[in-house]
Amino acid sequence: VALAHRLVAHRVFQGFIIGVILLAGVLAGVETDPALVTAWSPWLHWLNRAILAVFTLEILLKLTACGREPRRYFADGWNVFDCLIVALCFLPAAGPFAAVLRLSRVLRLLRLVSALPKLQLLVGALLKSLSAMGYVSLLLALMFYVYAVAGVHLFGQADPADFGSLPAALFTLFRVVTLDNWGDAFERVATAVPGLVVTLYFVTFIVLGTMIILNLFIGIVMNSMAE
Amino acid sequence: VALAHRLVAHRVFQGFIIGVILLAGVLAGVETDPALVTAWSPWLHWLNRAILAVFTLEILLKLTACGREPRRYFADGWNVFDCLIVALCFLPAAGPFAAVLRLSRVLRLLRLVSALPKLQLLVGALLKSLSAMGYVSLLLALMFYVYAVAGVHLFGQADPADFGSLPAALFTLFRVVTLDNWGDAFERVATAVPGLVVTLYFVTFIVLGTMIILNLFIGIVMNSMAE
Amino acid sequence: VALAHRLVAHRVFQGFIIGVILLAGVLAGVETDPALVTAWSPWLHWLNRAILAVFTLEILLKLTACGREPRRYFADGWNVFDCLIVALCFLPAAGPFAAVLRLSRVLRLLRLVSALPKLQLLVGALLKSLSAMGYVSLLLALMFYVYAVAGVHLFGQADPADFGSLPAALFTLFRVVTLDNWGDAFERVATAVPGLVVTLYFVTFIVLGTMIILNLFIGIVMNSMAE
Amino acid sequence: VALAHRLVAHRVFQGFIIGVILLAGVLAGVETDPALVTAWSPWLHWLNRAILAVFTLEILLKLTACGREPRRYFADGWNVFDCLIVALCFLPAAGPFAAVLRLSRVLRLLRLVSALPKLQLLVGALLKSLSAMGYVSLLLALMFYVYAVAGVHLFGQADPADFGSLPAALFTLFRVVTLDNWGDAFERVATAVPGLVVTLYFVTFIVLGTMIILNLFIGIVMNSMAE
Ligand code: NA
Ligand code: NA
Repeated sequence: VALAHRLVAHRVFQGFIIGVILLAGVLAGVETDPALVTAWSPWLHWLNRAILAVFTLEILLKLTACGREPRRYFADGWNVFDCLIVALCFLPAAGPFAAVLRLSRVLRLLRLVSALPKLQLLVGALLKSLSAMGYVSLLLALMFYVYAVAGVHLFGQADPADFGSLPAALFTLFRVVTLDNWGDAFERVATAVPGLVVTLYFVTFIVLGTMIILNLFIGIVMNSMAE
Repeated sequence: VALAHRLVAHRVFQGFIIGVILLAGVLAGVETDPALVTAWSPWLHWLNRAILAVFTLEILLKLTACGREPRRYFADGWNVFDCLIVALCFLPAAGPFAAVLRLSRVLRLLRLVSALPKLQLLVGALLKSLSAMGYVSLLLALMFYVYAVAGVHLFGQADPADFGSLPAALFTLFRVVTLDNWGDAFERVATAVPGLVVTLYFVTFIVLGTMIILNLFIGIVMNSMAE
Repeated sequence: VALAHRLVAHRVFQGFIIGVILLAGVLAGVETDPALVTAWSPWLHWLNRAILAVFTLEILLKLTACGREPRRYFADGWNVFDCLIVALCFLPAAGPFAAVLRLSRVLRLLRLVSALPKLQLLVGALLKSLSAMGYVSLLLALMFYVYAVAGVHLFGQADPADFGSLPAALFTLFRVVTLDNWGDAFERVATAVPGLVVTLYFVTFIVLGTMIILNLFIGIVMNSMAE
Repeated sequence: VALAHRLVAHRVFQGFIIGVILLAGVLAGVETDPALVTAWSPWLHWLNRAILAVFTLEILLKLTACGREPRRYFADGWNVFDCLIVALCFLPAAGPFAAVLRLSRVLRLLRLVSALPKLQLLVGALLKSLSAMGYVSLLLALMFYVYAVAGVHLFGQADPADFGSLPAALFTLFRVVTLDNWGDAFERVATAVPGLVVTLYFVTFIVLGTMIILNLFIGIVMNSMAE
């Protein structure tokens, strides 16, 4: 136990794990190129297995280091996060999970967040300040929902592609709030519905939406900086 | 009176009202789907009536709780807000108000703002800091108006769709200040009017407009955070 | 002199002037509608003359109020601003200045800034903090110029419409930095020039440009808030 | 040595160098216009040589001013920056370096940053705060890489132009995070891949990406202001 504890906390060990994570990231990048995949197929297969073995070993070592209290290991959210990612990589490659497996390989790179203490701190601060802004998020969700329902009733028949159903309307509103070609959606709708209603709908939504989002983002940034 | 007061202030009662508001929200969402509406028509009708009854009862209870001073109830802007929304739902469903009635059902979800004290505080802070930024808003309105009038005179004949009238120009300027395809409006205008005038008009408007809006939004966000 | 001084400083007088400025603004709005102009032509003509008379009288009164030191009047930049706008309105309506004259009428509305002390303060603070950010503006100008010259050399022949000359390149870069359809300009250029150069050019320009502009705007907003 | 030192530190000398840099900038601008280049060809050639001579002389003088410790000269990063730019201008104008040479002429204008102490300070502060935000940049890079690899696997076959390879996907994601016509890329992809996956991919990327970028930019701006 003591040995495992010392090993896990050792600089060289941590550096080695970070190196393996980076290697897994490079591998995931290489696998996006079909030519490279066919050329290096057996090597890639072998390397992926080796990386998975290292990650599994690391988890077992960390569990051992906790001695008789494995709960202490799982008490840290980042350890659970590591386990989930490694577990995902053990799913059978064939069948309906083939696509998920390929994605799991790039998700291994996310282990970098848990491996680098400063990055862990940064993401932790962002998540913490996100939950601190819970009521602003709720207000934003409320606004999106109300405008989406109103949009379906008002514009659903005039422009089914943008406002035909609740999910479509929600997506259109997300696109509008990012200010991406909102004028085009406006024009598609304005041909069938009186202009004043459409203008009020879009202008108030954009003004309120961007304001609340700015409030949310600046709040998150300020809170996470204060940490 | 005392009983009504205690009831209204009770946790369970407030939780129940929040639940009913959320139910009203879900119902408004369900009503956007024609298939669900035809399948569950009588249930939806019944539920809407029940929700309306609960809301009416709540208002009456709160009025009773104020005893001989009903003014105290209406002194709170949020109570007036609740009453208006409930009153809107009592409008006759037939005739020209049919569309409004359908919208009133989703507006009931906005009662969540008045039912959750923290959300009420947040919206109050936003409104308060908005009024604190009154002069920045005035400056922004002034700039929009001056540029719109100038736009009609300068570009009205060259591009009637964008600058043909004062409302059209105001809307075009709103679109320009959100930076949504402003280059297209620029090109439509620049074919008929000397380029230097158009460039000066658009560039100064975008620089000044985005600056004042950023000033306004950051001011609102900072003020509402300070609260 | 003392009488003029008291009159000019009087609340009612200042309120009257603000009312006349607002009337001038409404008039400028009415003049954007050809139907209204033909219907009310003599009234509009008469009102414009009356407004101009009031403004001229106001300037004379303020000059009188300064007694034997008219310099004190012109020492205030806002008074010079008022005089220039009124002078602009006296230009002959016929000939090449007809368009300018129509614009001068809406510029009279800008006198609201000098008439409302708080607005005057706000604009003053914005201008002051703009000059405080002089070096950031210089850096931004430098970046625009260097990228524009490089753009003409690199892409001038491939895409003359966007990068054919220095002014065209500067305007294209302004459009790119507002993130308005910059991908389209990128694609027009990327057909003729090696992709890596184009990507480096656009990506570095967007990253540096938006960063410096954000720096500039936040600096101006923070400075003007501190005042 | 003492003479060189006094000369280099003299106001007039520094002003003269700034003037020459500005002249080099104007020249680079003039060279973008083919008509002007043919008309003034010999003059431009002569001026460019003169400017280069002045810059070389300045470097030699500054080196002399450091006396027996030329290291002290190269210890200042800005001096190295100046030398590199001047060295670039000495590359042979013919052959494959012709394009680079033309660009080097406009890069000489960047010497303004090292010549103006305040600008030097500003850029130094920006660079310093950029390195202070190293971990946020790393998080951003990580997110881009993971989403790009996932994008190639998920959408590579459906939309090879946008997600066919890792560099293409990275560029598409950069375009998406600037919110430039991201809806179009979304639609190109959504025709072949189930909508829920595409929506999740784009919406989470936009929300996380813009948030981290805002965090990065505001951090840089705040840090550089604090200096
Ligand atoms: Na945009
Ligand atoms: Na756009």
